[in-house]
Amino acid sequence: MPAGEFTLIAELRDALGQGRSGDGTLIGIGDDAAVLDCGGRSLVACTDTLVAGRHFFADVNAADLAWKALAVNLSDLAAMGAEPRWTLLNLALPAGLATAAWRADFVRGWQALASASAVRLVGGDTVASDGPLTVTVTALGLLSGPALQRDAAQPGDDIYVTGTLGDAALALERAFAARRGEENPPLAGADWLEQRRLRPTPRLAFARAAQRLRALCAQDVSDGFLADLGHILRASRVGARIDAECLPLSPPVAEWVAEDGERLSRTALTGGDDYELILCAPPSLAGELQDAARRTATPLCRVGRILPPAAGVRLFWQGEERPLPTQWGHEHAL
Amino acid sequence: MPAGEFTLIAELRDALGQGRSGDGTLIGIGDDAAVLDCGGRSLVACTDTLVAGRHFFADVNAADLAWKALAVNLSDLAAMGAEPRWTLLNLALPAGLATAAWRADFVRGWQALASASAVRLVGGDTVASDGPLTVTVTALGLLSGPALQRDAAQPGDDIYVTGTLGDAALALERAFAARRGEENPPLAGADWLEQRRLRPTPRLAFARAAQRLRALCAQDVSDGFLADLGHILRASRVGARIDAECLPLSPPVAEWVAEDGERLSRTALTGGDDYELILCAPPSLAGELQDAARRTATPLCRVGRILPPAAGVRLFWQGEERPLPTQWGHEHAL
Repeated sequence: MPAGEFTLIAELRDALGQGRSGDGTLIGIGDDAAVLDCGGRSLVACTDTLVAGRHFFADVNAADLAWKALAVNLSDLAAMGAEPRWTLLNLALPAGLATAAWRADFVRGWQALASASAVRLVGGDTVASDGPLTVTVTALGLLSGPALQRDAAQPGDDIYVTGTLGDAALALERAFAARRGEENPPLAGADWLEQRRLRPTPRLAFARAAQRLRALCAQDVSDGFLADLGHILRASRVGARIDAECLPLSPPVAEWVAEDGERLSRTALTGGDDYELILCAPPSLAGELQDAARRTATPLCRVGRILPPAAGVRLFWQGEERPLPTQWGHEHAL
Repeated sequence: MPAGEFTLIAELRDALGQGRSGDGTLIGIGDDAAVLDCGGRSLVACTDTLVAGRHFFADVNAADLAWKALAVNLSDLAAMGAEPRWTLLNLALPAGLATAAWRADFVRGWQALASASAVRLVGGDTVASDGPLTVTVTALGLLSGPALQRDAAQPGDDIYVTGTLGDAALALERAFAARRGEENPPLAGADWLEQRRLRPTPRLAFARAAQRLRALCAQDVSDGFLADLGHILRASRVGARIDAECLPLSPPVAEWVAEDGERLSRTALTGGDDYELILCAPPSLAGELQDAARRTATPLCRVGRILPPAAGVRLFWQGEERPLPTQWGHEHAL
């Protein structure tokens, strides 16, 4: 993304994200979602925009697109520990796109995840556009008790990751190769990887369980593990040690990385679109968190430890320190 | 908007807008905004997308654009009687657009209305796009007591309109003519009209006062007076009598209409983008509503009466019935 747009976000936050005290904003811009006081349970609100050709292939199946547009927002709610409730959907549609088949697919893909997550569509806007298909979803959830926040990691906390990392990144690499006409090497589980890319599963149940256990710090992995861990470290003003051999890899990614260890960096460390959670919690919660993970059928791995700020980020492989990748991630790319 | 897109909205509403009872959705899709139960005050949520070249001229000043993108959403909150609190902003930006000057203008225009309305930006998403600038704003507000709804008009209710109608439509007609290289006839107040088009003022204070008075039915005028009145009549299953000579016109529109009475239809009856309110309330509230209008410095005119359903819509000019325009309005066009 050009520098002007990053600058714009910072300018908007600085100029428009400030309010009077007592306006009910518990958490404003700068976390996965805002937390707002409505007098009852706290409201959690987030929004994401996906643009054809940038965040998804323009020829994507509408069912997969609908699922993903909803999933990336539910993942932000999960990262706050919220219970998802309502959504709004804005579509800017190129002429001729919304055929009966496309519409049926879109509804089907949305419904599949919305039913499973018990969220209801309560509003939106559909407009015609001369540009690429642009999908904006806003998700609203409720929260009892404190949110999982980026800025709550403490030295000594364990760092956990749900699920497996790098699946979407490897699937995307193969999808790009196929589109360039290259033949991908055979890989067991390639179809499963592609599903991981197309239909990420927000970790809602585990996140809510962790929030109820008073774990305080989480962030979802959308820009890459190191990039999103970096958000936690900056916000919490702490350092971290990562034991790279503990990073959870699916069998296809593990097989692919085994051929060339450098590939770990492109997938698990910096690949985007995982929509897993990074959770930081004190060792005293370890047993209860693993119980919650089992109860919610969520793979959960301890991958490192939060350190004092002076430590920065230190990457280890079987006890030996390794250099960090120069680039830590990317903005939700296609 | 092509039929496919209207069909999509209906399909989304029918397929995805249904929830389980007890999910906290007090008002879902189908009014100006959703009303949601968070356990304290009700949350009111709405969203609108504006696309360059469709809803605004691509060379619009960024300050005017920011104002309008926020205003059209605040107008939807007003139409529910809600107190605006928070906003989210999604921008899909063409490369090179967000220069320092553009960013400063955008922030200035947004801030001008956000400060006046006491709303805070709490989230959003900024993405690069190869298409036209696309601005989505989501507005969140709070409500104590029942919302102003579209479906609450009763036979015998007075029909009121705030402000004046048709200003934006006449300004837009002149802006299109100027862009075609035509010379517009001189018109006193043309600059004021243009400001009405560029910077609509949501009727927040009056709407909240009306809501506190237990007026029950309102709708904002974005698609044209007859079109938006039509939304009320369909939702409430009632008819209406409109006394066209009572429709509030600003001096420039009145002067322009005086030359050719047919122009009333193009402006006050069907012109879009007024962002005024239509309010329906029993005659017993007339005095208190006029007091509220004075207190909030809001022009308020009684323009007709709600009739039983069988009456349909009847248009009168000084007591004489006139035919209705064949087209009642349009979708928020440029």
